[in-house]
Amino acid sequence: MASVYGGRLKVQIFGQSHSTAIGAVIDGLPAGIKIDMDKLRAFLKRRAPGQSEISTPRKEVDEPEFLSGLIDDNTTCGAPLSLLIKNTNIRSGDYEELRDIPRPGHADYTAFVKYGEFHDIAGGGHFSGRLTAPLCAAGGICVQILRDMGVTVTSRILQIGSVTDPDLFREEILKAKEEGDSVGGVVECTVTGLPAGIGEPMFDGIENCISKAIFGIPAIKGIEFGSGFAGATLRGSENNDSFECENGVIKIKTNNSGGILGGITNGMPIVFRVAVKPTPSIDIEQQSVSLSRIENTTLQIKGRHDPCIVPRVTVCVEAAAAIAVYDGMMQSTISF
Amino acid sequence: MASVYGGRLKVQIFGQSHSTAIGAVIDGLPAGIKIDMDKLRAFLKRRAPGQSEISTPRKEVDEPEFLSGLIDDNTTCGAPLSLLIKNTNIRSGDYEELRDIPRPGHADYTAFVKYGEFHDIAGGGHFSGRLTAPLCAAGGICVQILRDMGVTVTSRILQIGSVTDPDLFREEILKAKEEGDSVGGVVECTVTGLPAGIGEPMFDGIENCISKAIFGIPAIKGIEFGSGFAGATLRGSENNDSFECENGVIKIKTNNSGGILGGITNGMPIVFRVAVKPTPSIDIEQQSVSLSRIENTTLQIKGRHDPCIVPRVTVCVEAAAAIAVYDGMMQSTISF
Amino acid sequence: MASVYGGRLKVQIFGQSHSTAIGAVIDGLPAGIKIDMDKLRAFLKRRAPGQSEISTPRKEVDEPEFLSGLIDDNTTCGAPLSLLIKNTNIRSGDYEELRDIPRPGHADYTAFVKYGEFHDIAGGGHFSGRLTAPLCAAGGICVQILRDMGVTVTSRILQIGSVTDPDLFREEILKAKEEGDSVGGVVECTVTGLPAGIGEPMFDGIENCISKAIFGIPAIKGIEFGSGFAGATLRGSENNDSFECENGVIKIKTNNSGGILGGITNGMPIVFRVAVKPTPSIDIEQQSVSLSRIENTTLQIKGRHDPCIVPRVTVCVEAAAAIAVYDGMMQSTISF
Amino acid sequence: MASVYGGRLKVQIFGQSHSTAIGAVIDGLPAGIKIDMDKLRAFLKRRAPGQSEISTPRKEVDEPEFLSGLIDDNTTCGAPLSLLIKNTNIRSGDYEELRDIPRPGHADYTAFVKYGEFHDIAGGGHFSGRLTAPLCAAGGICVQILRDMGVTVTSRILQIGSVTDPDLFREEILKAKEEGDSVGGVVECTVTGLPAGIGEPMFDGIENCISKAIFGIPAIKGIEFGSGFAGATLRGSENNDSFECENGVIKIKTNNSGGILGGITNGMPIVFRVAVKPTPSIDIEQQSVSLSRIENTTLQIKGRHDPCIVPRVTVCVEAAAAIAVYDGMMQSTISF
Repeated sequence: MASVYGGRLKVQIFGQSHSTAIGAVIDGLPAGIKIDMDKLRAFLKRRAPGQSEISTPRKEVDEPEFLSGLIDDNTTCGAPLSLLIKNTNIRSGDYEELRDIPRPGHADYTAFVKYGEFHDIAGGGHFSGRLTAPLCAAGGICVQILRDMGVTVTSRILQIGSVTDPDLFREEILKAKEEGDSVGGVVECTVTGLPAGIGEPMFDGIENCISKAIFGIPAIKGIEFGSGFAGATLRGSENNDSFECENGVIKIKTNNSGGILGGITNGMPIVFRVAVKPTPSIDIEQQSVSLSRIENTTLQIKGRHDPCIVPRVTVCVEAAAAIAVYDGMMQSTISF
Repeated sequence: MASVYGGRLKVQIFGQSHSTAIGAVIDGLPAGIKIDMDKLRAFLKRRAPGQSEISTPRKEVDEPEFLSGLIDDNTTCGAPLSLLIKNTNIRSGDYEELRDIPRPGHADYTAFVKYGEFHDIAGGGHFSGRLTAPLCAAGGICVQILRDMGVTVTSRILQIGSVTDPDLFREEILKAKEEGDSVGGVVECTVTGLPAGIGEPMFDGIENCISKAIFGIPAIKGIEFGSGFAGATLRGSENNDSFECENGVIKIKTNNSGGILGGITNGMPIVFRVAVKPTPSIDIEQQSVSLSRIENTTLQIKGRHDPCIVPRVTVCVEAAAAIAVYDGMMQSTISF
Repeated sequence: MASVYGGRLKVQIFGQSHSTAIGAVIDGLPAGIKIDMDKLRAFLKRRAPGQSEISTPRKEVDEPEFLSGLIDDNTTCGAPLSLLIKNTNIRSGDYEELRDIPRPGHADYTAFVKYGEFHDIAGGGHFSGRLTAPLCAAGGICVQILRDMGVTVTSRILQIGSVTDPDLFREEILKAKEEGDSVGGVVECTVTGLPAGIGEPMFDGIENCISKAIFGIPAIKGIEFGSGFAGATLRGSENNDSFECENGVIKIKTNNSGGILGGITNGMPIVFRVAVKPTPSIDIEQQSVSLSRIENTTLQIKGRHDPCIVPRVTVCVEAAAAIAVYDGMMQSTISF
Repeated sequence: MASVYGGRLKVQIFGQSHSTAIGAVIDGLPAGIKIDMDKLRAFLKRRAPGQSEISTPRKEVDEPEFLSGLIDDNTTCGAPLSLLIKNTNIRSGDYEELRDIPRPGHADYTAFVKYGEFHDIAGGGHFSGRLTAPLCAAGGICVQILRDMGVTVTSRILQIGSVTDPDLFREEILKAKEEGDSVGGVVECTVTGLPAGIGEPMFDGIENCISKAIFGIPAIKGIEFGSGFAGATLRGSENNDSFECENGVIKIKTNNSGGILGGITNGMPIVFRVAVKPTPSIDIEQQSVSLSRIENTTLQIKGRHDPCIVPRVTVCVEAAAAIAVYDGMMQSTISF
């Protein structure tokens, strides 16, 4: 097992950065769901690079082609939905140097240990950020389904590097770019409109499921729900969310729990934040080793790099969250 | 699905706080592993309450009884290993008030929404921290197996509330206790001795798997690997871990990745930190609601509470990590 | 993985023939289901040996003790339900001979290859027919849940050896017993009252799921649905089940499909038959080998054996079918 | 879940009879396996229709295109392997009549109940026998891997209708064809070269796993291992397979167990037989109903049909068996 997520909804991601195509199979979608292709394209466009000077100038046209699972009018038929996104820029570069000299912060070395000489090193292979395109396609469909049920998934950038003022984000990214360096950040995701009672106890709680999906996005190194790490510094009397009645409805006054208690939604918005590490690909010369000669060497990564992927990661976080939450909803409902 | 963890190794946790017994079934352990019962008892004792003035005075004797899976001499036989821990203190209290007035920060309300009147409210039911006892029993066995393979799982408290000086931890807990309040903290867990190459790409990476297991522990609200949230503030040139050769061996100079790149171990120690929320049970009167009368009320939780569970959580974190890592090792090895 | 069945409903069986206890954990049951313990006991009694001269005279009192998952009044609370059945007759015999000389037709040899010297040989260990007791306890609960939904699971013996006249079954078994031999048979199971539309396409069809559960019963070596192997000899025009309308309701005239088309129920009763091999334990001296000395030897199995387990298998078949069908129902229902 | 098979090896099948493409994703294959494309094509050709007068004259070119998972030279790289087979003959016919008038013996009716108006009725949708093409592609790869490990998967037709003489099979099929009817049969599959010790006890035994995969093939209605249903008529002394030593090697004299004891391979060939029902599509007019008008009607299926799919099913059975056996091998090996 590896690139399959899910309980009742199964999302299988496939592809390498330079394979013929990348794609996804989504098994378990109910029949009769109409996909709004324009909205899906708009969702995917948020992930695409080359849209401004603060991301890599490489242009990717990520148009998903649906192979199965739909009938006319883009409506699901109950059969597994499969889609592919063609890779237009295949094996053009020379990646043999990377096979020998692993890039710090990338999966080159660990993939070499795991798969040996057979690892598809080109563009990072299956470990490439490019694989988030089919993740976003699958997640974008879940976002639409959730929206039809009144559940909204949104995200925003909280931090770029150490900067927390949104007006200064662009400047911070450009500064890193000028230095030939990169910068990370923090993204917050919110899921509103979920009923209370979704999620299973212990290992299939909503926190477990979202985390399992979210760490499928390369560069994510941390996740916290509600008050999270800051909550660990509070007293119980400060961190507990009180209940109150308002016009005959039970409400929760604060949301330090991030909408989840005992792994189960409490009706408040799910709120979580993820730490995005700075892109490992930088212009600056780095110290590495030659795996064949077992000796020290330096590495200068060619081409132009994304100085900050945080803006593009937001949509991936929404996609992963939508998949996890929708699957959680499907698992939680028991009619029999 | 709910309280089952695992891929090749399956760990099923069962029980409620006041049921006849709680326990675990571990399916998939190889035959021929000798369990050191004294070490297992010592491991479980670290979780037990009532050991000092900074934890709840309730005494629990958490002696696991093995029902199956062992032959003489406490050696696994390949059949599912099952164990139970008797609950000695069953349904003694009056929990009907809690059924009507949910405790802030607990799963009372979400369990009520999910299971209705049938939820076993006594002591928190299946959501009780008591369920970490069988988790620790299962994890303690994995810790032993890993140790025999040269893999060590340890943890330490980094923070109690806002205090980071270990000499002051006890004081901070006692202060919270005097206030009738509780305090959270941060635990760091380290897994050393793991070979590089363990873990699967994308959704079955080591980060995904550890997170899925760790959020099975009540009160955990965040997790970060390596430099984590702090790493998000760094430049790529600072956060990337360089490779170097030393005496013909490839080494990694720093460990901002927390031992994991692309979901796969790189041979450095796995390092992660978890945020533990302050125990929701406090002496201080709290605002809540009556679910039956739909009106505001106050709640004063009776009995004596654990002002800080962080010291007891350390062993649970090790247990969950050991289960995830050992399962990851079993999944990663492909001989055919 | 091994002794865990299920998708949404997980049934974990544990225990060995001579371990302290055998049992089951059922994870995923909805809250609020009241178990009728008398009916469950009556169900389990059908499996128990020692009830007549045609089964083994060993008396087993298979009283399940529930450890968790129930609140007062034997009603499920949503937490994993766990139960154990104590083994009263533990490790009394001398099984070391069997460790060296595998019994033909038993799992002694394959378990030896798989688990080596650590295999719990006593009474067949985890491979013993005794493990069908917790299977029947878990299945008996599913039978009750199904019955409350109008779904009935029944079975009958079609054949003992080559005898198809029920009046002669007893005679055939006694004949085998007198010869110191054993005899097999065929059991037919019928599930009525199921709505059409249950089951998933391809690998999670009802046939796939029932088979996966049924082959968990030792001694089952074949399964066929509807007209099965006999249907393979028919023309399509004979084997196809025609539709017809009767009083405004769509009916299916015949049931050669066994109630399943494309893996999905069609509203007709599910009908399947299983082949039960003759019990491998017989009084007659058999040829075997010494695994330690690698030489031919003979084996005479001591004690008194069940000349025919077919009557006791019927309830196991119902139990396995009920688990598979109920899990299929839970998986099929999609409200979102 | 639905069209996903597997434990460590995951095979996801997608597509409908008239969708843009059908295909498979295989997740979990080790890196470094070279696929012989000529052999794979030859394997797939055995399934293709239109090869003689005894199968449907429709020509299908089932050339699999690999999208991912391979590096140059058709060698696996460890990433999920994905392949598609284009459907050349899309939505050409008028299938609206079938939506209203379900074909007896097909999944038209059950799919209608399950998916409603959204079911892709064209050509049978996801329930079409055409979906065995990607199954064969996935299974054909497993066949090659197994062969490299010395494991051979073969099959043969035992019976066409009631005819057991291979010289008369063709005649029997032509006779059914002349009558505008169809005929079923029995296929036997043999897996040789497997070591003893493969398979897990109870629900993940080899019989369970093969059955779960095999019933994914439309038209299969029964399966039996070793002596199977015939074994149920034997005495234990006849059905038990004796052990013997020959030149210092332990052998098993007969193979009534079909190579499996307790769910685990015993080193003898795995032998099983499957019942293939007669193709439901026949020229003869059949009785059915109009689902919209709820009234009786007759149905004459247009076009030319396969009078007997048994010859084409053989390769599907081998494919499904290879997937199950190889996955079982991957699950059984425990190095840690």
